Amino acid sequence: MTHGDVLVHESWGQRAVFATGAARALLAEEVERLGRSRVLVVVAEGERELAARVTEGLPVVATFTGVRQHVPMEVAEEARRLHRDSRADVVVTVGGGSTTGTGKAVALTEGAPLIAVPTTYAGSEATPVWGITDEGRKTTGVDASVLPKAVVYDAALTTSLPPGLTTSSALNALAHCVDSWWAPRANPLSSALAAEGARQLVDALPAVRQDGADLRARQAMLLGSYVAAVAFAGAGSGMHHKICHALGGAFALDHAAMHAVVLPHVAGYNLPASADARRRLSSVFPGSADPFDALLSFYASVEAPRSLAGLGLAEPDVERAAELAAEQIPSSNPRPAATRDVADILWSAWRGEPARLIPVAGPDLGEKEPGDTDDGH
Amino acid sequence: MTHGDVLVHESWGQRAVFATGAARALLAEEVERLGRSRVLVVVAEGERELAARVTEGLPVVATFTGVRQHVPMEVAEEARRLHRDSRADVVVTVGGGSTTGTGKAVALTEGAPLIAVPTTYAGSEATPVWGITDEGRKTTGVDASVLPKAVVYDAALTTSLPPGLTTSSALNALAHCVDSWWAPRANPLSSALAAEGARQLVDALPAVRQDGADLRARQAMLLGSYVAAVAFAGAGSGMHHKICHALGGAFALDHAAMHAVVLPHVAGYNLPASADARRRLSSVFPGSADPFDALLSFYASVEAPRSLAGLGLAEPDVERAAELAAEQIPSSNPRPAATRDVADILWSAWRGEPARLIPVAGPDLGEKEPGDTDDGH
Repeated sequence: MTHGDVLVHESWGQRAVFATGAARALLAEEVERLGRSRVLVVVAEGERELAARVTEGLPVVATFTGVRQHVPMEVAEEARRLHRDSRADVVVTVGGGSTTGTGKAVALTEGAPLIAVPTTYAGSEATPVWGITDEGRKTTGVDASVLPKAVVYDAALTTSLPPGLTTSSALNALAHCVDSWWAPRANPLSSALAAEGARQLVDALPAVRQDGADLRARQAMLLGSYVAAVAFAGAGSGMHHKICHALGGAFALDHAAMHAVVLPHVAGYNLPASADARRRLSSVFPGSADPFDALLSFYASVEAPRSLAGLGLAEPDVERAAELAAEQIPSSNPRPAATRDVADILWSAWRGEPARLIPVAGPDLGEKEPGDTDDGH
Repeated sequence: MTHGDVLVHESWGQRAVFATGAARALLAEEVERLGRSRVLVVVAEGERELAARVTEGLPVVATFTGVRQHVPMEVAEEARRLHRDSRADVVVTVGGGSTTGTGKAVALTEGAPLIAVPTTYAGSEATPVWGITDEGRKTTGVDASVLPKAVVYDAALTTSLPPGLTTSSALNALAHCVDSWWAPRANPLSSALAAEGARQLVDALPAVRQDGADLRARQAMLLGSYVAAVAFAGAGSGMHHKICHALGGAFALDHAAMHAVVLPHVAGYNLPASADARRRLSSVFPGSADPFDALLSFYASVEAPRSLAGLGLAEPDVERAAELAAEQIPSSNPRPAATRDVADILWSAWRGEPARLIPVAGPDLGEKEPGDTDDGH
């Protein structure tokens, strides 16, 4: 029997709680709910004070502050050692994606549950994906044990995120949404969540840029980035994330900004071949005549980062990155993408040119819909 | 510290796989994935043959066929005994809501994982809610252990569901969606899923009514009812389900048909007080001037059941049902509902009158949005 057309949606158990100004009380409740009494706090050096406030009154037995981007193996090992030596029984992370990632590395091998208190829109807290870098190579995996059992979102912890970081982190979250529509396990459930997350982010970002202390808008951003990450966890990595993964693995570029720069170029490539994605994106910008134009206008209005050159990608590396990325494009993509196609996208993004729609040649659009995939199972 | 405005979204771990004609192969894969080798099959007498086909080749050690509506305690006990006596290590249900419910009763006390193969649009397979009836009283509870670890949806198993049952089961699923928008734990995630589920159901039902063997439309129905149930599991029971629960508990009415009849009346009551629900329902009927009118037209087009009297509710029981139900209306409801309001709704539904919008009196609509609830935590 062939399983030609199998559609799979996998969800994971998690409690997400949102409450402005209540992180400390809610975190204590979640630790108690898990029946744990020995907390290892994982936090980046720069957010120690914030973490101290949030974990005040908790039975903290150790604090790990050696967080570094991409979770180097030696950092993971050190955090795990501290977990064992302190006989901690629960890991609490307070911070962005790298901090959550370090907590996941501990949970992966030490069997302790994880509770995340995010301070950016990275979304790692809502996925069972872990990543560790060893000798310049990033290994990633999926393991239910690294998914935080609970996530505590408190908009009051995010008001100090500066406008530039706020914007690139938000656009990184938006990329989770858009890329979900053509990712390998895309399905109506993940696609609906992606549209909802995108709508929240697009509505809230201008308000937050205007007033970083707008707690209502900050909470909407957290909610949007959470929904985006849940969608992404369900759908998997699409063309956008495969390209960014190749870029990020080989060349040290700022993670969120890189995702922000590449997104409209991939959208311009894939939207002409996916009626479903066009419809979903239209629902994010109601009243707009064209969803791609609306996306570009939105990008302009929030002063999105525009060029990979500006992020430090060297000119000779563009072709190499295209080669690395082209091998990884999922077969679920609404149109094929050869090395040349990816290189065109990357050159355009490298130069900081405005993204544009790349028409599909030929009389038949040959549109693919989610589920019409040969690797969805 | 007050938790006045806490928004909670709880999700549960589950694999849902959809593949037309592949139930047997996929079910075998899921049993193997769980590492189980002694299957207890739970199935209603009338679906034995179907279950035999689906479970062919599996290591079945026992089959329980004593399924009855509302899971009477003695049925639950008998199924549990068979599970123990046969030393089964996994429960596989093949059937509708009552069959899934019987499997949940076994999982609740016997510690065995559950795999569901649904044959209707009941949605029970996507929630951690169980229910057992003892001496005429239905007890329900929420327990993660009763949520099926995997659900196998195969449209080919549903082609024999007759048009009448198809319609009432589909409208019951639609009620999961609509009621989600004002339920106690309603949040953007559950609300977006509810809109997606509703859209799938509304699109597919007319096609399935026209041709019950339309496998593409039948799969869309399964997908829609799954998404609806995930939304409902997240949001909890709103006014609609509280009314139906009161009706169903006290008077023996057909579950799905009762839900179908009551839905537009509750929608007519709540929509005027919830801009969010109006917006969500509008997205289900794009191009319609008014979402409530569109819902009523849809009801008419699918020949939905219309009257509680027709389902067997006796006239003297209407006021009693209103009293029982009014106590249960969640405080999250977009407008208060006194016994009189519920009675008006029930009389209208009892007589089979067309549902109508009940305007909100006073200058201030006092609209509530999801999250503005005092019992969401």
